Amino acid sequence: MSAGSPKTRTPTVAVVGATGLVGETVLRVLAERAFPVGELRALGSAKSAGTRVRFRGHELVVREASPEALEGADFVFFAATGELSRALAPAAAAAGAVVVDKSSTWRMDASVPLVVPEINPGALAEHRGIVACPNCTTIGLVMALEPLRRAAGLVHVAVTTLQAASGAGREGIEELTSAARASNVFPRMLAGNVIPQCEKLLANDYTSEEEKLRDETRKILGLPELPVTMTCVRVPVAIGHSAAVLVETERALAPREALAALRAFPGLCVGEGSEYAAPLEVAGRDEVFVGRVRSDPTHPRRLWLWCVIDNLRKGAATNAVQIAEELLAQS
Amino acid sequence: MSAGSPKTRTPTVAVVGATGLVGETVLRVLAERAFPVGELRALGSAKSAGTRVRFRGHELVVREASPEALEGADFVFFAATGELSRALAPAAAAAGAVVVDKSSTWRMDASVPLVVPEINPGALAEHRGIVACPNCTTIGLVMALEPLRRAAGLVHVAVTTLQAASGAGREGIEELTSAARASNVFPRMLAGNVIPQCEKLLANDYTSEEEKLRDETRKILGLPELPVTMTCVRVPVAIGHSAAVLVETERALAPREALAALRAFPGLCVGEGSEYAAPLEVAGRDEVFVGRVRSDPTHPRRLWLWCVIDNLRKGAATNAVQIAEELLAQS
Repeated sequence: MSAGSPKTRTPTVAVVGATGLVGETVLRVLAERAFPVGELRALGSAKSAGTRVRFRGHELVVREASPEALEGADFVFFAATGELSRALAPAAAAAGAVVVDKSSTWRMDASVPLVVPEINPGALAEHRGIVACPNCTTIGLVMALEPLRRAAGLVHVAVTTLQAASGAGREGIEELTSAARASNVFPRMLAGNVIPQCEKLLANDYTSEEEKLRDETRKILGLPELPVTMTCVRVPVAIGHSAAVLVETERALAPREALAALRAFPGLCVGEGSEYAAPLEVAGRDEVFVGRVRSDPTHPRRLWLWCVIDNLRKGAATNAVQIAEELLAQS
Repeated sequence: MSAGSPKTRTPTVAVVGATGLVGETVLRVLAERAFPVGELRALGSAKSAGTRVRFRGHELVVREASPEALEGADFVFFAATGELSRALAPAAAAAGAVVVDKSSTWRMDASVPLVVPEINPGALAEHRGIVACPNCTTIGLVMALEPLRRAAGLVHVAVTTLQAASGAGREGIEELTSAARASNVFPRMLAGNVIPQCEKLLANDYTSEEEKLRDETRKILGLPELPVTMTCVRVPVAIGHSAAVLVETERALAPREALAALRAFPGLCVGEGSEYAAPLEVAGRDEVFVGRVRSDPTHPRRLWLWCVIDNLRKGAATNAVQIAEELLAQS
């Protein structure tokens, strides 16, 4: 880092997209975790400039994100559109900031680390100013997979996700809770329904969300050939992405061994029997919840898991702040 | 059948559980399909006796189900508790009626056919007075699997279901739509949530619903060793069970071949690309909807499917009435 790095003074932090669901959660998590912040700049699109947000009890006026607004920043959290990140992140990085980006823009860029701090903090050493924060669904999955990988190796992962409306931002929640029968955000009306399409449907009949889940899982776990197959479904839940995961390991793992491996891993909350989690009780929590761990009687090396993550916190804001904490610790 | 069988006079039909969600749908479907009904007896528990229901524009007073109330009936649809079916079905069958039972009581009894008329109508020839109608989730799954079995054989099925509140009856819908924050019917509050437990959790960490799905699928398809593995999830949907199905066939099936096989099968409605179904648009329909048919890139003989069924109609009432129609046709 340049002179005046976070090593020697309290960092200047910018949050781009501060009025969005993830951005406001980044502000909250920065405060909750007492992340060292000298100056906090709340930034956003031209449309949201002038809006007020709160940070540590103070009101901040949101300014339009621009190269000038990012000058001198040590950490820039991007919780905005991919376009804004593509336009502004490289210059901010070149000017000496570390960008932690929550958009999908840089995730699969080979020169950009894609990091879940509990799993691959070492990848941060090679950053060139931009670090990508994974997709909210991916984080829940890899947090459950990594302890099993370490305990027994991974051979195959098949997953069906049940994803909350807030994965599509504030508009997603508003559409879920409004009485309107028409849908603008989702491909069908979401209230009282489930929709087997998250994000765009591609020519190969998979969705962009499904491809992200596969590609990011492989990159984070450092297993570029890992077979990962999935169906991603949107469900009428405000916060909390769930997944039913069928995982094949290299060595057979009894459920009690899997439970022990999961319990020993940081950031997980593991339940047995009826102590599985459901989204309503996970909203607001930073752990990834794993339950219904059981053998698959149709295969000697396969286990079922049920995972739930608060997609706004550990699925987005908390993971991004943890990345910044890890950068500070490594600097 | 005994003298005075449906062959020679218009059948006397009894519906046990006529005030329940499935029972009232049986009455509606009998009328819609112009099933030949001479006399219609609406029966139920002692508690529901005296309630009024409608059939073909007439009001009927519900009487308490008893051996006497079933005397002389040609067809008895049980859409009530398993206890009532266990208590009354054998005597009704012995007295010459054919019982079509929607409870789980008789489904796995080796002497009782478990029938989806599009799939195994031949099993009806061996009935001894009781025919079982499968679980609502099972019917959706086997309707999608059977055409693939005929086209390419089945090796393995892995499924995650997303099941509607009405699978737990009228109380399930009432709990979903009430503002009450406590839950009596489901293991957690269902509104705004998803719950990875349908029915009872067993000692092996599977649920009774999951075991039914496996056992009934094997029996209906006549594949007693078929590996079927699953997670069943309750979702905040009123009507319509969905399933994400990963199916391995003996011979490789390209998606277009699978689509052709599915389209040629009666009772299915097949969509490509964005023409998948979601529960809100399936409620009230008798077809099973299959969409998102695509290859699994991690295996040369595996396909993903997305299936949706109205659990009260084809998942229950319509299938039961179809069974009775098939019995009439075979008699």
